Amino acid sequence: MRAEQYGVVHMFVLGIDPGLSRCGYGVVEHRRTGQRAVAAGVLRTPAKQPLPLRLAELQREIRTLLVEFEPAVVAIERVLFQVNVRTAMSVGQASGIVMAEAAGWGADVVEYSPNEIKLAVAGHGDADKQQMERMVQTLIGIEIPLRPVDAADAIAVALCHCAQSVLVEVER
Amino acid sequence: MRAEQYGVVHMFVLGIDPGLSRCGYGVVEHRRTGQRAVAAGVLRTPAKQPLPLRLAELQREIRTLLVEFEPAVVAIERVLFQVNVRTAMSVGQASGIVMAEAAGWGADVVEYSPNEIKLAVAGHGDADKQQMERMVQTLIGIEIPLRPVDAADAIAVALCHCAQSVLVEVER
Repeated sequence: MRAEQYGVVHMFVLGIDPGLSRCGYGVVEHRRTGQRAVAAGVLRTPAKQPLPLRLAELQREIRTLLVEFEPAVVAIERVLFQVNVRTAMSVGQASGIVMAEAAGWGADVVEYSPNEIKLAVAGHGDADKQQMERMVQTLIGIEIPLRPVDAADAIAVALCHCAQSVLVEVER
Repeated sequence: MRAEQYGVVHMFVLGIDPGLSRCGYGVVEHRRTGQRAVAAGVLRTPAKQPLPLRLAELQREIRTLLVEFEPAVVAIERVLFQVNVRTAMSVGQASGIVMAEAAGWGADVVEYSPNEIKLAVAGHGDADKQQMERMVQTLIGIEIPLRPVDAADAIAVALCHCAQSVLVEVER
């Protein structure tokens, strides 16, 4: 999936920053000439709802994004274990749902670690939040930082995938 | 969901022992006169397949169980953090998929901790594996221990839910 995509002149990449309370998403159109942000936002599920209903709602929202944007690739930030064990578990549950839904729908699903994303977008693995925001701004050509920050993070995941995929036009 | 179920004389409970390599399931028919195991088994996904495809396969299999048995309730063992962080993450992803799929399908979804399951099935929270197996055998009235063990564990989760739900027949 990181290989060259023969015969493809553009494609949509859906980037996901997984989470249960806030799940960032960003759709990037990847062309040989550059990238363009098509949509970005945050899927939220209310904390007072029971967990299974929140997970089902997230699943429905992800399905809606897949149907609406038909991404060839879903790029998702790999879940690493954080200090807060409770958060790590719900992030894991959210990421499982996104991956199952996207793969079942027919998209290629690729995971990237936070370091890989920083390296691809900012050029070095220890980039801070502000450097990342500026690079996302530059890469998609917008004047002000993308908000909310989960949406910007999701765009960064999608851009990370774009940086790894070379689009090659096949001669006819 | 743990309350009395008015007007219900029997219902199917799908118990799930979540996991990615091996996900135990067990369908129990809950009647006022007792419980009966209807089906039990293990859903497996091949370890050499990419993670997103394994998760999508698990999702399909869970959907098939929901459609086949139409459980009113899906009871799932709550994921606790284990020594092996890698396993905990994939169990979390699997449990997220099961809960989203079941709740989206319309079943009530209830989580039970390992201790709650032991307490409900064997009468005390520190029951060992063999005591649990014998109690599962007794409760569903079978002669030999249920195998594979993941299937028996899933039946125990379903039996735990049955123990907490009183079926009350409404007079007509």
